[in-house]
Amino acid sequence: MTWVPNRWYVAAWDSEVDRSPMARTICNERIVLYRKLDRSVVALRDACPHRLLPLSLGFKEGDSIRCRYHGLLVGPDGAAQEMPIKSERVPKAICTQRYPVVERHRLVWVWIGDPERADESLVPDFWPCSAPGWTFDGGYNRIECDYRLVIDNLMDLSHETYVHQGSIGQHEILETPIETRVEEDEVYVSRWMAGIDPPPFWRDALRSSGPVDRWQICQFVAPSSVLIDVGVAPVEAGATLETHDHGVRGFVIDAMTPETERTTHYFWGMARNFDIEDAGFTARFKAQQGQVFDEDVEVLEAQQKAIDMNPDLRLRGFSIDQGSARARQIITRLAAAEGAFAG
Amino acid sequence: MTWVPNRWYVAAWDSEVDRSPMARTICNERIVLYRKLDRSVVALRDACPHRLLPLSLGFKEGDSIRCRYHGLLVGPDGAAQEMPIKSERVPKAICTQRYPVVERHRLVWVWIGDPERADESLVPDFWPCSAPGWTFDGGYNRIECDYRLVIDNLMDLSHETYVHQGSIGQHEILETPIETRVEEDEVYVSRWMAGIDPPPFWRDALRSSGPVDRWQICQFVAPSSVLIDVGVAPVEAGATLETHDHGVRGFVIDAMTPETERTTHYFWGMARNFDIEDAGFTARFKAQQGQVFDEDVEVLEAQQKAIDMNPDLRLRGFSIDQGSARARQIITRLAAAEGAFAG
Amino acid sequence: MTWVPNRWYVAAWDSEVDRSPMARTICNERIVLYRKLDRSVVALRDACPHRLLPLSLGFKEGDSIRCRYHGLLVGPDGAAQEMPIKSERVPKAICTQRYPVVERHRLVWVWIGDPERADESLVPDFWPCSAPGWTFDGGYNRIECDYRLVIDNLMDLSHETYVHQGSIGQHEILETPIETRVEEDEVYVSRWMAGIDPPPFWRDALRSSGPVDRWQICQFVAPSSVLIDVGVAPVEAGATLETHDHGVRGFVIDAMTPETERTTHYFWGMARNFDIEDAGFTARFKAQQGQVFDEDVEVLEAQQKAIDMNPDLRLRGFSIDQGSARARQIITRLAAAEGAFAG
Repeated sequence: MTWVPNRWYVAAWDSEVDRSPMARTICNERIVLYRKLDRSVVALRDACPHRLLPLSLGFKEGDSIRCRYHGLLVGPDGAAQEMPIKSERVPKAICTQRYPVVERHRLVWVWIGDPERADESLVPDFWPCSAPGWTFDGGYNRIECDYRLVIDNLMDLSHETYVHQGSIGQHEILETPIETRVEEDEVYVSRWMAGIDPPPFWRDALRSSGPVDRWQICQFVAPSSVLIDVGVAPVEAGATLETHDHGVRGFVIDAMTPETERTTHYFWGMARNFDIEDAGFTARFKAQQGQVFDEDVEVLEAQQKAIDMNPDLRLRGFSIDQGSARARQIITRLAAAEGAFAG
Repeated sequence: MTWVPNRWYVAAWDSEVDRSPMARTICNERIVLYRKLDRSVVALRDACPHRLLPLSLGFKEGDSIRCRYHGLLVGPDGAAQEMPIKSERVPKAICTQRYPVVERHRLVWVWIGDPERADESLVPDFWPCSAPGWTFDGGYNRIECDYRLVIDNLMDLSHETYVHQGSIGQHEILETPIETRVEEDEVYVSRWMAGIDPPPFWRDALRSSGPVDRWQICQFVAPSSVLIDVGVAPVEAGATLETHDHGVRGFVIDAMTPETERTTHYFWGMARNFDIEDAGFTARFKAQQGQVFDEDVEVLEAQQKAIDMNPDLRLRGFSIDQGSARARQIITRLAAAEGAFAG
Repeated sequence: MTWVPNRWYVAAWDSEVDRSPMARTICNERIVLYRKLDRSVVALRDACPHRLLPLSLGFKEGDSIRCRYHGLLVGPDGAAQEMPIKSERVPKAICTQRYPVVERHRLVWVWIGDPERADESLVPDFWPCSAPGWTFDGGYNRIECDYRLVIDNLMDLSHETYVHQGSIGQHEILETPIETRVEEDEVYVSRWMAGIDPPPFWRDALRSSGPVDRWQICQFVAPSSVLIDVGVAPVEAGATLETHDHGVRGFVIDAMTPETERTTHYFWGMARNFDIEDAGFTARFKAQQGQVFDEDVEVLEAQQKAIDMNPDLRLRGFSIDQGSARARQIITRLAAAEGAFAG
């Protein structure tokens, strides 16, 4: 196991889960997701307690699923409600595992671990995704790599220079010094570019000329999310690393959910506090982000293969890797505290 | 090994084996099958005793095969008959394994185990497939699952209600009580539906109106066959569970041969004692059976994957699984008696 | 490991390697090959010393490669030349493995093992490929089999009778006795056909009528090459097994490089001392050889699968296998001398 047990992981976008059952593997567990009539989301182990056929192949009946093989009816709490022979009494022991679910910030989160310990206060605070004055949308990629390689990627934006050299990469990013800071289970990597001429995207967003302060603050949130606070403000506004709501601001939201030890569900998006009614901008920006992340997928999958094919070699950490190194240390420490080894 | 060694297994339909060599894996052994000039079937290990090239790639010469690599000539008894350099003496030790073969009931059976112990009296008695007054035909599917999952499926027809709900399924099957009986290495699961209105298929077959008695008797025959005695008779004929040749009767024949531990050769068909000259009926019925078994293949392969992906979960047995539970006990007992463990 | 470490292996044809990086796995090591501006060939471990992304995905800058992920610049000696942040000092320890390379006989050879021990005198002597009065060309196949199966194939030409019966096979080859001789790390298998009528290919090459002496001398050169000296001379010229430059002569050149334990890079060609200016003949002959080797590929891959699927069976050696048996003994002995086990 390479992840932290007893934590919330994003299972899906809210838009992906509907009344029909949907199968998804989360942290190596086969899970079926669906919405009840009251629209709340149910997550069950995707195996009938009778002969293990995936419940996701079954037939919905109200808020329950009838197994497609022999017709066992399983309720949204995982307990069997009707035997194949309907007149038979249902033994109490016949049930499938239920996973606690929280729907927050437009994402569906499932608790992987002991359900008794599920604690909603541990859901990462993606506040810009649901705050007034902000708008949010995003997409999904499945990547054939360890989820921690995606965290490495996002905690070190210097890779933009080469990986995204056809799109968002620029040499200035590599040349601005970074500051790394750990706060409990979070890591911050900050770049503050003072009095610069902003690139076209931010010039357009700001709708005014003149020099700006620009920031990129990558925040790792255990067990597997990265939020990147980005934006620009006119120099005269006096924005600081601590307070910078004077100009235009966005949050790149990244939730990396392990599917298996070698594959990752990658949920990404951007929240912003400008032009929030402009649906066309949202759609254009999402398409652009999708293209950038496709470039990452290509590199990350090649990196995973290279790691597997060169078992005698180890990843090295340079100064640019401080943020990801700290994030990995937190993952290892939290996993160990749960009795798991994420080496 | 999940099967019983020292038993006969169906290798092919009689129509599949001809003069040209045909490769098939049976119980994890690579076998080449072909007919001699006298039309009897030969089964040899599909590996040249010289450099192991499959003999099935070779050239037939009379009743022998010449290896395509260096030309060793192997006879139908598995012994080498000619060296690559024809003038060289052939050492006695150079031979490939021969498997005992019996052709019976339109099927080709091979003996998997010690050839000295091959005993034709152990070939399962599929008597309706070759009895006068009966006709028989069938087909073949390769299924990516443990052969025992197919036995489970056939010993519990209650699955028809949901798996075959678009074709032969009906709720009445689930509602009729079953009776399970073990006789040595056989298991019988019987359903007797007295005085009912038969479904269209049987009404047409019987060619008369009025209430009928209807039966379904699933018979597991070790090591891996299931025969299902099905039919209807007018109530006034007085048919009983023991004697029911008063109306129209059929036998669904199912022979499940392990290819590997996770794949199965499935030979299926139906023998019947009515309209036996009607070749059109035979063809239509075979096509229909093929569609029904395609529905089973889909479920069985999904079940196998679910078993593999949920290693912490176990299959549960309900009352409807009595027959298959007994059949699995017999397989385990017989395998243990042969020194094998089919857990 | 099934090969001899601390030896030269062919990595590529000279024509395959250019200024752009090319990835190839040699003896299970991932290697990137490219030419410097002075046209000499560089071979490095294909993994950036930073985060292991294949260097072959990177960008060439002069004679160096810049990693596509974070921009580490790696020189042709494997040492890092520039950090992602260009102003940072480059630590000495940051380098990737460099492989010694020799370009000889139109082939690019890499040293697999301890680079300190690389010894150019150990490059097999493919002298006809670069001698005056000779011409040479060839091709490449990737074969999914152990490289030793290809050596077996080439050290025993009796297989031509059956494998190549549609092209170059003929029964006479099987009927001429062979002589096998071992000289240190080389094995010779000789066939001398005195006073025969040559086949059309050699009749055309010789451009004269009358009986000829014909020879086929297979020479295994450790660790994994086979040269086959072939040709004909008029009987009256008095050619002998030792000296036979009186007629027309060719060398079939075969270099088998293990890619992995189950896959082989097969470099093949023919050098000849006749019609050496006739480029049309060269092209026609290469096309013909390609077809013949495709027939071998089919048999060799089927043999490898048969070996894997019949783990209880062993390869047998007949009199025709003397040459390959001796070659395998040499491989095993040399591997053992290097502390490796090629069983």
